[in-house]
Amino acid sequence: MKTLGYYNGKYAELEEMSIPMNDRACYFGDGAYDASPSRNYKLFAIDDHLDRFFNSAGLLKIKMPVTKEELKALLEEMVRKVDTGNNFVYYQVTRGTGIRNHAFTEGAGNLWLLIKPDEIEDGLTPIKLITTEDTRFFHCNIKTLNLIPSVMAAQKAVEAKVNETVFYRPGGIVTECAYSNVSIIKDNTLRTHPNDNQILPGIAKAHMIDLCKKLEIPVNETAFTLDDLYNAQEIIVTSSSNLIRRANEVDGKAAGGKAPELYERIRKAVMDEFYDATPAD
Amino acid sequence: MKTLGYYNGKYAELEEMSIPMNDRACYFGDGAYDASPSRNYKLFAIDDHLDRFFNSAGLLKIKMPVTKEELKALLEEMVRKVDTGNNFVYYQVTRGTGIRNHAFTEGAGNLWLLIKPDEIEDGLTPIKLITTEDTRFFHCNIKTLNLIPSVMAAQKAVEAKVNETVFYRPGGIVTECAYSNVSIIKDNTLRTHPNDNQILPGIAKAHMIDLCKKLEIPVNETAFTLDDLYNAQEIIVTSSSNLIRRANEVDGKAAGGKAPELYERIRKAVMDEFYDATPAD
Repeated sequence: MKTLGYYNGKYAELEEMSIPMNDRACYFGDGAYDASPSRNYKLFAIDDHLDRFFNSAGLLKIKMPVTKEELKALLEEMVRKVDTGNNFVYYQVTRGTGIRNHAFTEGAGNLWLLIKPDEIEDGLTPIKLITTEDTRFFHCNIKTLNLIPSVMAAQKAVEAKVNETVFYRPGGIVTECAYSNVSIIKDNTLRTHPNDNQILPGIAKAHMIDLCKKLEIPVNETAFTLDDLYNAQEIIVTSSSNLIRRANEVDGKAAGGKAPELYERIRKAVMDEFYDATPAD
Repeated sequence: MKTLGYYNGKYAELEEMSIPMNDRACYFGDGAYDASPSRNYKLFAIDDHLDRFFNSAGLLKIKMPVTKEELKALLEEMVRKVDTGNNFVYYQVTRGTGIRNHAFTEGAGNLWLLIKPDEIEDGLTPIKLITTEDTRFFHCNIKTLNLIPSVMAAQKAVEAKVNETVFYRPGGIVTECAYSNVSIIKDNTLRTHPNDNQILPGIAKAHMIDLCKKLEIPVNETAFTLDDLYNAQEIIVTSSSNLIRRANEVDGKAAGGKAPELYERIRKAVMDEFYDATPAD
């Protein structure tokens, strides 16, 4: 199969899959998701992702229809059905099925999977960013299906012919990007927004922080501003779908690129960890 | 038919309908909706609702697959297929269909309808409210499918055995409810949050405001606080699914009920307008 869609036990190519119109995804975006990259059919940092996925569902009081172990086994089985080993492996749970009504449906949620070919970039080619005001809700720590502000921001990047959009709250406080976290290097220290309700606790970011500590690069988890972003030594964008990248342009002006050795040490550590965890057979 | 589900030209009972897994509702809640009550198969204030629906879609840059006139004709046709004439008539548009990717899909959106039996209350029986912090995004003027905070708030009301949940922003500023607007009578004046990005521009509310003006009841569209709510002469909850109701309890304490004649004048004017617009055949 070229892609795989899965819904409560049924699976097929994504284009062939359909789901009940009464699934609560359809009216409320009432669900949580997570996603892991695979290389050679091996899922990177899957236990971290499953922990976050179950935590997101728990915060929304959605009853998971499977255990972590069952889901892990299912993902490992389903990813093998796709022709290519390098994939974006996505899983979501929606609250249930019932005629539209805000209050919760009874019983366990519906399990969805989506697998499509995707390659992790090597993090060497710099990317371009724009910024936009962060008008999202204060539940950004939960990986929900309520993603319209991220959709609008991602489209803004496409139309500006750049790679990602950075969100900032009032006072110019940088939070994260449309579908990535953003950190900077300032004073030779990795600076990144703390994990609160304004950002997703990124797993690639968490791995990067752990690796910085091993490399004895100081880490400061306090919010930074747009000015800090514009004037940073380096700007580092992390996500599960592209692990680590650096930016060399923000809002049309050159930015970052002032501590290339430091960035390279971090990038290499992240990519080595990825390659070690997803070896070729 | 007891209920009706419709998707891009196909229709059946809601439970029998399915939609493509690649519809952007499924991953991003990427759509807008609106809903009108019908009585004796006649849609109340349908032009107002269609204007707001097309405005919501426009703010999300979703391309409508039909004109207002076409949609109105379709709704009038589809509501006749349902056994009962008193219905909740719901319509939504999602951005399109494509393998999950934040940036916009090309082309026109997908049109969905949902019709289910529903009765408008007469607004005489008082309801109970609780309050909760408003942590939603700053696009509440757009009727989107990103409704998890409303779902959580509505469930909170169910678990507290009350009818609706009132949202308040920092500083105790009352905005609206999980799926209704809330207004108060204070100093014999109708007081209600202005139409900005923190509330839905309610159509039942707009009709109530117009009717108050005709009845020479002063209207003050400025935000009020939780204290104002607790101490109001009357608390009025409006929505398209229940037009107008009064509350007599907030957070477990007696509230409102101090200007019953004033409430009755407003209630009667709203209900008369509804009955005039949806006459029995």
